[in-house]
Amino acid sequence: MSNLTLKDIAKTLNLSITTVSKALKDYPDVSAKTKERVRAYAEEVNFTPNAYAAFLRTQESKIIGVIIPRLNHYFFSNVLKGIMKAAEEHSYMVIVLNSEESYELEQKQVDRLLRQNVDGILMSIADSTHDLEHINKITKQNIPLVFFDKYSKLSNCSSVIINDQNAAFAAVEHLIKQGKKNIAHFRGPLLPQNSIDRFLGYRKALDHYGIEYRKEWVFRCDDISSDEGYAYTQSIVEEHPEIDAIFAVADMPAIGAIKYLNEQKIEIPNQIAVMGFSNWKIANLITPGLSTINQPGELMGKKAFELFYTELQNIKKGVIAEKQIVELETDLIIRNST
Amino acid sequence: MSNLTLKDIAKTLNLSITTVSKALKDYPDVSAKTKERVRAYAEEVNFTPNAYAAFLRTQESKIIGVIIPRLNHYFFSNVLKGIMKAAEEHSYMVIVLNSEESYELEQKQVDRLLRQNVDGILMSIADSTHDLEHINKITKQNIPLVFFDKYSKLSNCSSVIINDQNAAFAAVEHLIKQGKKNIAHFRGPLLPQNSIDRFLGYRKALDHYGIEYRKEWVFRCDDISSDEGYAYTQSIVEEHPEIDAIFAVADMPAIGAIKYLNEQKIEIPNQIAVMGFSNWKIANLITPGLSTINQPGELMGKKAFELFYTELQNIKKGVIAEKQIVELETDLIIRNST
Repeated sequence: MSNLTLKDIAKTLNLSITTVSKALKDYPDVSAKTKERVRAYAEEVNFTPNAYAAFLRTQESKIIGVIIPRLNHYFFSNVLKGIMKAAEEHSYMVIVLNSEESYELEQKQVDRLLRQNVDGILMSIADSTHDLEHINKITKQNIPLVFFDKYSKLSNCSSVIINDQNAAFAAVEHLIKQGKKNIAHFRGPLLPQNSIDRFLGYRKALDHYGIEYRKEWVFRCDDISSDEGYAYTQSIVEEHPEIDAIFAVADMPAIGAIKYLNEQKIEIPNQIAVMGFSNWKIANLITPGLSTINQPGELMGKKAFELFYTELQNIKKGVIAEKQIVELETDLIIRNST
Repeated sequence: MSNLTLKDIAKTLNLSITTVSKALKDYPDVSAKTKERVRAYAEEVNFTPNAYAAFLRTQESKIIGVIIPRLNHYFFSNVLKGIMKAAEEHSYMVIVLNSEESYELEQKQVDRLLRQNVDGILMSIADSTHDLEHINKITKQNIPLVFFDKYSKLSNCSSVIINDQNAAFAAVEHLIKQGKKNIAHFRGPLLPQNSIDRFLGYRKALDHYGIEYRKEWVFRCDDISSDEGYAYTQSIVEEHPEIDAIFAVADMPAIGAIKYLNEQKIEIPNQIAVMGFSNWKIANLITPGLSTINQPGELMGKKAFELFYTELQNIKKGVIAEKQIVELETDLIIRNST
């Protein structure tokens, strides 16, 4: 590696250190010509601008931390894609951490990101998180924090969310309008706000249409997995033959239901209709296609990055701005399962 | 934030700076008792050890960079999961970059990771990468580089791979043993080694069993998507009714084939059998279940991290070791589509 510094390059090219630094980082406020000149020279002398030196100068790491509760999960991968694309455009890099829905791991990962001097943290809260001390640690340090999807009502942070209650209402309303009256719900775990809200949307729709709520028709999917959906559908068919529709908290349990019904040659949607939530790619690849609620994951990631970026600029300018809650639109997607 | 340094803490607790630093980083060679003492005090004085200060001391960032060609891709997400789990265990953090199968983006991302002083780079090469200059830049700087899945035969780097040719041979052999004789192949793009090798495995199996190779039965899936599989299956049914089996380079095109065949009520596997490659979760969720080759993604990620870690230790000790190629086992998974 070369031992030249930014200062040496600036001197040789008769430019300011800031201009050289910005040119190498591809900042928009440096002309293409200057960028080209700086880069050509940097290449000639084999100069690698050092991120640590840059940090000591700017106190910015140009790194953000993202904590997602599940990897290999279509929706969160889509959010991540949106975050990474926006980050790439702003020359940020992304440290990704997987909390595996564990509160303990999430706490540890927040600490590690803070030690790493990230410029901001974007996160979706783990299902088992029941305390916000680690969250408060971030905000106390004046580091922008943005929640996406699974947020906390108790913390005053910018968030990008959907209206889970309204979306669930629309899903169940659609089933009712198809003539279904005995609608089971595969709900999610107890703690996450989105799981609570989807359950409340289900209840609200039943109420609204004068259908009695029966708590024995609510089945809890703690892992939100296809296996749980498969097993619960088996017990529905065997023990509750009057059930004519299932509204699942997410696509995976709904897909498990369809798998079981297909195996038993039970007609979908005539005998039992199935409704998911999220619109994973697989929803359109199985037969019959799964009706569901489309959650715009990539857009959610993009918006989350934008909220972080705005907040960072405000902090740099010393502006104290209101936290923002961005609520994204969802769509009811009707396929052959209903 | 507190203004205390590691030195201050070491002095107060009567420990060496190294011990304090290791205790805070959870190194295994510090006793649990000492760790507890250091942590309790660090918490009391609200000390956040600064990653930059640590880097200046150790010249290690404890960050690795991972470049994957596709996000929201079951297999690569699984590899990432394996990498991140192993990284977590060794107190490394992971910067993830998505090359989107683009050579240009991949080059840029390598540069950014080098500027960030990552301790190592793990990557799977983009489909469009046709030149290895950026790869050579990494190795010249003596930074450990490990390939996973899509590697280059031309570069002397440690890699974790599978034997694509043998696995494809086994897949096609299985179809032949089921009595299929007119087997089409949905191949991948032209450049990637794994796409070439799976195609060669297909040809080898035909040769071995004395079946004539017909190049008009090979269909190229440049996006490796379900849409391509769907469209090619339609043209097979309409234009090549003699075809009785399809071997696809990956699960997605195979799933597109099954979708089309289901819609047309064409019997699987009796009229046309379908074989995938990779064993995505969805392969077991569709009806009929998709026969495929299981690629151990998470293990691949774990092994890739281990190769990086070994290489880093060797570099630190000044040992020049041979590059390692780890070839993982694959399994033939037989489901109802064959």
